[in-house]
Amino acid sequence: MDGESLRNDGFLGGRLQIKQPATGYRAGADAVMLAAACPASPGQSVLELGCGAGVALFCLAARVSDLKLTGLEVQSGYADLARQNARANGLTADIVQGDLSHMPEVLRAQSFDHVITNPPYFGSGTVAPDAGRGIARHEDVPLSLWIEAGLRRLAPGGWLTLIHRAERLGEILATLGARAGEITILPVSARTGREAGRVIVTARKGARTPSRLLFPFIMHEKPSHLTDGEDLSAEARAVLRDGAALNLRDR
Amino acid sequence: MDGESLRNDGFLGGRLQIKQPATGYRAGADAVMLAAACPASPGQSVLELGCGAGVALFCLAARVSDLKLTGLEVQSGYADLARQNARANGLTADIVQGDLSHMPEVLRAQSFDHVITNPPYFGSGTVAPDAGRGIARHEDVPLSLWIEAGLRRLAPGGWLTLIHRAERLGEILATLGARAGEITILPVSARTGREAGRVIVTARKGARTPSRLLFPFIMHEKPSHLTDGEDLSAEARAVLRDGAALNLRDR
Repeated sequence: MDGESLRNDGFLGGRLQIKQPATGYRAGADAVMLAAACPASPGQSVLELGCGAGVALFCLAARVSDLKLTGLEVQSGYADLARQNARANGLTADIVQGDLSHMPEVLRAQSFDHVITNPPYFGSGTVAPDAGRGIARHEDVPLSLWIEAGLRRLAPGGWLTLIHRAERLGEILATLGARAGEITILPVSARTGREAGRVIVTARKGARTPSRLLFPFIMHEKPSHLTDGEDLSAEARAVLRDGAALNLRDR
Repeated sequence: MDGESLRNDGFLGGRLQIKQPATGYRAGADAVMLAAACPASPGQSVLELGCGAGVALFCLAARVSDLKLTGLEVQSGYADLARQNARANGLTADIVQGDLSHMPEVLRAQSFDHVITNPPYFGSGTVAPDAGRGIARHEDVPLSLWIEAGLRRLAPGGWLTLIHRAERLGEILATLGARAGEITILPVSARTGREAGRVIVTARKGARTPSRLLFPFIMHEKPSHLTDGEDLSAEARAVLRDGAALNLRDR
């Protein structure tokens, strides 16, 4: 990933400038939504599994101060980019290159207040033909392993926050199973009336309280035939442009 | 359950008259919604697990002609009532008294195109102190057993349709797991913006297609502070009063 294949993407209304490969996997709205939904408080520790160029981790740091940021990324090119992006945005983050199915020793020795993850899936982000894309897109590591690895890295009472395709909700809930409680599911629909494309799920390690299925988060305001350009809902604008929190527990 | 303890409840705008205990467990909107969501075609066979006084089964028969109706009910008083209600509404139904955790031989020998169920849960229906209530309310048989028993009674490619509390969605999906596909989840919200109180789930035995999480079905039209009485949404009125189908596959 040399300089020529990179592009600069602004997030949170330009507050965050992130270099990403021009032609490979690029994080987008999903990463920003993931960061918004993580209920971290100032001073807490956060691990992102599969941090890519760091968009979710750094969006979170833009909203919550004094976080201890850690990212695990299997592709060294993306891990390097995440380190560069941290520096360029005045942030400190411990980016570890490694494979979550063989969790690096340095991470195995730690536990975290929060784990966030946007496990790869076919069609995620903005994708064009590229070598790096292959790994980010395809599920070499099953979804259940991402969730199990995340839960293992949490301190008791710690929070797992993830975003994924809505069609995988069954697997997500089955894997969380008895290992976590206080499960809250936020469907994300493109427009009012549409089925969910994504789900954001938060769960608390070791908790026992029942699950909640929230009313969908709506990305776009109007029926599609009424508008040409971008027509984000007020709530989507607040999250994506203004860096607002997406507090699932208060919905 | 003698005559004096019974009351007559109208369903589907009065098209269906159902005797239910005046002071025990009584089926309500959940049973009607369950019937509306079952994708049965004329001439097919339907088994209801826990049919109570028969509300869901007979609502379904009011919409779809020539169904072969079978109900399993553990409490003999409710089984008798279901038989009476079938006769009173000009319907034929095979009501079997028995326990789904020891599936009666007569049902074990059969398979069905559809299984529908509204497994009991604390707070279901309209409840007042009564002996029968205890069994209908409490989960003597775990939710997973209801689902497993239902799937076993389905013919290959047959459909399971169930309604339950939204907080149990995780268990429902985990139990359906690899045994069923084409899982479609319809959250039911009291009002726009509110988290789901119920979920209606349909699944096809042996199918492999991915899950869908639909936009919620909204029961009531307006914010609660704006109205006094019943303010059903147009869609809820169509289902509850006019007996319209709730076709999850076309949403």
